[in-house]
Amino acid sequence: MNRVPLEKKVLSENDRIAAELREDFARHGVLVVNLISSPGSGKTSLLEQTLARLEPSARVAVLTGDIQTENDANRLKRFGFPVKQITTGGTCHLDARMIKNHLADWPLDNLDILFIENVGNLVCPSSYDLGEQAKIVVLSVTEGEDKPLKYPSIFFKSELLILNKVDLLPYITFKIELAEANARRVHPGMEAIRVSCTTGEGLDEWIEWLQARREKSVERIPETVRA
Amino acid sequence: MNRVPLEKKVLSENDRIAAELREDFARHGVLVVNLISSPGSGKTSLLEQTLARLEPSARVAVLTGDIQTENDANRLKRFGFPVKQITTGGTCHLDARMIKNHLADWPLDNLDILFIENVGNLVCPSSYDLGEQAKIVVLSVTEGEDKPLKYPSIFFKSELLILNKVDLLPYITFKIELAEANARRVHPGMEAIRVSCTTGEGLDEWIEWLQARREKSVERIPETVRA
Repeated sequence: MNRVPLEKKVLSENDRIAAELREDFARHGVLVVNLISSPGSGKTSLLEQTLARLEPSARVAVLTGDIQTENDANRLKRFGFPVKQITTGGTCHLDARMIKNHLADWPLDNLDILFIENVGNLVCPSSYDLGEQAKIVVLSVTEGEDKPLKYPSIFFKSELLILNKVDLLPYITFKIELAEANARRVHPGMEAIRVSCTTGEGLDEWIEWLQARREKSVERIPETVRA
Repeated sequence: MNRVPLEKKVLSENDRIAAELREDFARHGVLVVNLISSPGSGKTSLLEQTLARLEPSARVAVLTGDIQTENDANRLKRFGFPVKQITTGGTCHLDARMIKNHLADWPLDNLDILFIENVGNLVCPSSYDLGEQAKIVVLSVTEGEDKPLKYPSIFFKSELLILNKVDLLPYITFKIELAEANARRVHPGMEAIRVSCTTGEGLDEWIEWLQARREKSVERIPETVRA
């Protein structure tokens, strides 16, 4: 069993394409965020609520990944922004080549923010750089406070923790401060926003975070590479 | 990129060990069930409620898998049955060799049922045979009705669907009949049990399912291989 060398080769090929993508995104001033969570934590609901709150003139697009079905793209297309489904057919994560292929006919000049919704999986997507500026991990409050300790990689690599479904807190024993403290044991100083896609709580804060993050990412682009 | 042949080799080595385990389990009349779900669907809570309902003389044991932490084993040990944590250190699923290694000092003659709690992941564990007689998929009602269609492999391969957290149904829009119908689109005739580990609903039915499944698995053992 000689597994590691091949895994390294796959990852280094992925990293090469991701680095190209990152340079492209920077040149065009596109903020790219990679949303990662367990199945059913509410990534698609968060994107629905986000798109619903943006001006029709907003320059945003979505790539949404799943093993099977076009369900998520269908849910997201009704807001009028460009949306494409990436169906992996069994692969447990998106990779940089899938992103590159699906972006081939999308002019990046027309975009300020690209949302990537990864396959629902708290493990494998954390190993694959997609050229994004920020990974964002979504944890719903029904999943238990210990998840950051059990799945540390994705919490360590994510800039932001979205705690979703806070409207259900009265009906469960989840201690939200403990979940945040666990996330910060893995990733000191990690930002966190509490949201409910049902009541709308916290969504303004999330939109403000996105806008501030976009401004920060554009500021970082050296003058010489701006489009 | 020559990925498939190595993956095949890893899987065939896994299948060889799993076949040995399956034969061992059959020879000793042990029912082995492999519980698979997203992170936070309630596999450990289901096992806690199961162990709490068994007689102290019951011949059961648990192997519980996680990427990091011994939390689940600590939760389960207080019921007095043998429990071991398998910490994968990053691997997104259990494999047959991990099971074999962790069973090395457990006499199978002392067991009627072995519960294996897989790593929280609805994708990768479905590809790894652990020598179990039955895979069981746990879906919590907060995760959405479409999960069987998006993650068809594990629903196709599982004998039983446990729909957990039904106590939360009054507070969410989840249509439980639709979730069951989606599971049966992928896996016609699939059995389903609705449970709540908070209120206890459905747990008697689950224990009865286990007992009936054990009897069926023992009946199937040819006389010549019984221990």
